[in-house]
Amino acid sequence: MCELLGMSANVPTDICFSFSGLRQRGGGTGPHRDGWGISFYEGKRCRSFHDPEPSATSTIAELIHSYPIKSELVISHIRQATHGRVSLENTHPFTRELWGRELCFAHNGKLGGVKSHPLSGYRPVGSTDSEYAFCDLMGRARSRWPQRAPRPDTFAKQLERWLQELSRYGTCNVLMSDARVLYAYCTTKLYYLTRRAPFKEATLIDAELTVNFKEETTPNDVVTIIATQPLTEGEAWIQLTPGHLYVFAQGERAR
Amino acid sequence: MCELLGMSANVPTDICFSFSGLRQRGGGTGPHRDGWGISFYEGKRCRSFHDPEPSATSTIAELIHSYPIKSELVISHIRQATHGRVSLENTHPFTRELWGRELCFAHNGKLGGVKSHPLSGYRPVGSTDSEYAFCDLMGRARSRWPQRAPRPDTFAKQLERWLQELSRYGTCNVLMSDARVLYAYCTTKLYYLTRRAPFKEATLIDAELTVNFKEETTPNDVVTIIATQPLTEGEAWIQLTPGHLYVFAQGERAR
Repeated sequence: MCELLGMSANVPTDICFSFSGLRQRGGGTGPHRDGWGISFYEGKRCRSFHDPEPSATSTIAELIHSYPIKSELVISHIRQATHGRVSLENTHPFTRELWGRELCFAHNGKLGGVKSHPLSGYRPVGSTDSEYAFCDLMGRARSRWPQRAPRPDTFAKQLERWLQELSRYGTCNVLMSDARVLYAYCTTKLYYLTRRAPFKEATLIDAELTVNFKEETTPNDVVTIIATQPLTEGEAWIQLTPGHLYVFAQGERAR
Repeated sequence: MCELLGMSANVPTDICFSFSGLRQRGGGTGPHRDGWGISFYEGKRCRSFHDPEPSATSTIAELIHSYPIKSELVISHIRQATHGRVSLENTHPFTRELWGRELCFAHNGKLGGVKSHPLSGYRPVGSTDSEYAFCDLMGRARSRWPQRAPRPDTFAKQLERWLQELSRYGTCNVLMSDARVLYAYCTTKLYYLTRRAPFKEATLIDAELTVNFKEETTPNDVVTIIATQPLTEGEAWIQLTPGHLYVFAQGERAR
């Protein structure tokens, strides 16, 4: 299996602290050594970094950990290969353009049999069932709304049904974005945590690092972190209900 | 205007030396301070780095300069904005998926009026005429070969005609790849240089740096560099003939 990390915020925020915890699970405190990737939205496009090296030792992960790239919307993934070899082609997040925006997708789980679905419009570059499932969703979205993006709540309703269908093939924990909001869906586990004033200290589980968010934020900041497993001790992480699509916008849960 | 840099090699080769020269023109020895990007192919997908910061001072450019990512096919671009604001969305190279491969495109020049072309299948995310022209080419390629990629020489013949048509709108210096070969086309200027045994020393024009390629290579290595202007002193750079599409494969000129 793999681990997912997402962030939604109402101001451009760096993800250095949370990423520091996640990357240790990529060959350090965890077994997810088969590559990693992270996508930071800036406007309608995202800036992505991918590396087939383990995140715990990757030079590029060291850059992400130390160089504060600020964004309101981030999706990251560290991989433990179950399907498809270790290569750049198979490294999440995957991105495709639709409606003149870049859509981004990361998945945790196995979806055996999903490749029997016929695809339209989008084709996978690598060999993972995850990228295949993303291309399937993208093709459906384009057929359903060929001209322009539907409203996020309209898209969310339909996306929830499509993800429920995909879930028949196996485990389907997903983070996805259309450059507006962050969609989160799970069949097994995902947790989220919203940080807002009054901010406190937080300590990572996987690295010896404590941050006092009071010193890093302004009183109006709202930031939600979504992760496969809680990243910090002593904060009230909330488990997502399986089978329900969550939407996070500007740091707040919107659905 | 902008500057382009491409590499084709018969073995995975790092581009640190040439990139060191190019990046100095991005806000250092040259005026191209409006962002930069680089794409390294690994299989059918490319690993891209983009930054709206000037390449001469960018932290990410510093990483690319010092961390030897090896590839057989690289496209890079530093931007001096003429059309479209300075933002990630407008930063080359642009990429799109077609035929289950990632295609990559970087352009130097103005193509005023290109946006009157109707698009099919691909839409720009940013506001540059360059990305619009790329989407136009991608839509035509998909309509012409909907199922699978044509042979590189078949594609080259058609691409040359399409680029000649686009050239009516202005300056059209282009580097493009379909994950197999590197296509290069110019209406004003592009130069290439093929390095092979016996390898010699080379000295950058834009940075105080000399490399002895004899120490960096094996006798069978063949590497071609394509750039808007020669990057080194004392090497025999060849100017591309305007209006003709060049193809570079495995380090050698193939068309």
